[in-house]
Amino acid sequence: MAATYKERLAEVSAALADPTRREIMDYVSASGTPISVREVAQAFGLHANAARLHLDKLVKGGLLRVVRMRGKRGGRPASLYLPADEELELHLPPRHYRLLAEILVEALCATGEETWERLRDHSYWRGRQEGMNASSPLARVSPRAEAEEVARAWGDDLEKRGLRTRVRLLERGIIEATFLACPFGEVSKRYPGRLCSVHRGLEEGVLSLAGRWTVERGEQDCVFLARKDEASQGRDR
Amino acid sequence: MAATYKERLAEVSAALADPTRREIMDYVSASGTPISVREVAQAFGLHANAARLHLDKLVKGGLLRVVRMRGKRGGRPASLYLPADEELELHLPPRHYRLLAEILVEALCATGEETWERLRDHSYWRGRQEGMNASSPLARVSPRAEAEEVARAWGDDLEKRGLRTRVRLLERGIIEATFLACPFGEVSKRYPGRLCSVHRGLEEGVLSLAGRWTVERGEQDCVFLARKDEASQGRDR
Repeated sequence: MAATYKERLAEVSAALADPTRREIMDYVSASGTPISVREVAQAFGLHANAARLHLDKLVKGGLLRVVRMRGKRGGRPASLYLPADEELELHLPPRHYRLLAEILVEALCATGEETWERLRDHSYWRGRQEGMNASSPLARVSPRAEAEEVARAWGDDLEKRGLRTRVRLLERGIIEATFLACPFGEVSKRYPGRLCSVHRGLEEGVLSLAGRWTVERGEQDCVFLARKDEASQGRDR
Repeated sequence: MAATYKERLAEVSAALADPTRREIMDYVSASGTPISVREVAQAFGLHANAARLHLDKLVKGGLLRVVRMRGKRGGRPASLYLPADEELELHLPPRHYRLLAEILVEALCATGEETWERLRDHSYWRGRQEGMNASSPLARVSPRAEAEEVARAWGDDLEKRGLRTRVRLLERGIIEATFLACPFGEVSKRYPGRLCSVHRGLEEGVLSLAGRWTVERGEQDCVFLARKDEASQGRDR
């Protein structure tokens, strides 16, 4: 990786400037397992050399990393590609929001539980406001719409926000959203579980544009279950 | 500006992939006044058409904006370029740290003053730790070094962190650092003055690698004055 911010900016933008390369990056990031040059070549209809060139540029830009593995039948070790460990953060002008968020969480950890409870409420209102400002697809859904329609609009909203998510409809109108990457990434990793309620509050706020939905934790932290809050239709939050 | 995260990523990386374009962006950002095509062409030894092409790509990428102004002698209005109002934030995988920081500041504002005082302490230690992890040039400066040397190393450290700053030595060994862009940008704008002590704490922490320095507010929020804390050499912080 390059040493200064300027050098990093140069390498990252060079890596990302090609549309095929961006597609390859998405492909590798979404796969969940290390990917070989051959797989990329096949998936994108490229010659192996071209695929390798793209992959190596993504490695140079710090977006992917490479591991070398010997196959079962021996021979030359093959290069396998997977997402970089380090996340990439680029701001213009340069900003250090992640650092700020970490310092703030640390300070909040030293305060009482009631601060954390307040946080979820703040998050709800903020999510609702963000959804309105960004003209969320959820704002175009009627409060009486079927869960299926809400699920689709939520999925579109999440994609618009750049969040990698799998949204599906379960039985009894429950919508399940699985976040493949946490929007609060490294900060959340440092303070496990602490920020999940902030995230859930945010999503509840965004969903509130399409009626009254409650968002609960699913089987894991990054799986949310949204269900329509029929009882509280008339109640003020 | 493009609507989705993916489209934005495409436009931004296209805008930034060219080294001359990155230089032009820096040039316009640093100038402080709107810049004409002709000025850019002269500064970079380019034909006016080439300069305009670069500038327009930067506008398309959301990095600069353009205003049209009629000159004193009438005639066609000229295009002048200046930094975009909206800051650019790019994360891979997508992260929403700015939003998180805003929600956290909001929650902290509802707590007592003592939380904010604790924040400065957190920031000091975090700055010190960051400086060590990043092998800051300040860590290679002897605690007995002249202020001039510390100023130089601090400037190098700030540049490495991508922060646009002017560092100079005043009389009596006081170092003045002027931040041309706040590392906490939009969050700081939303809560004016609140985060300056966090930033000062961070810089004090980084500077502590080169001895004991106190960082105070200069004439404005974004001007810091660092002076060697002679009295407290032996004292534990």
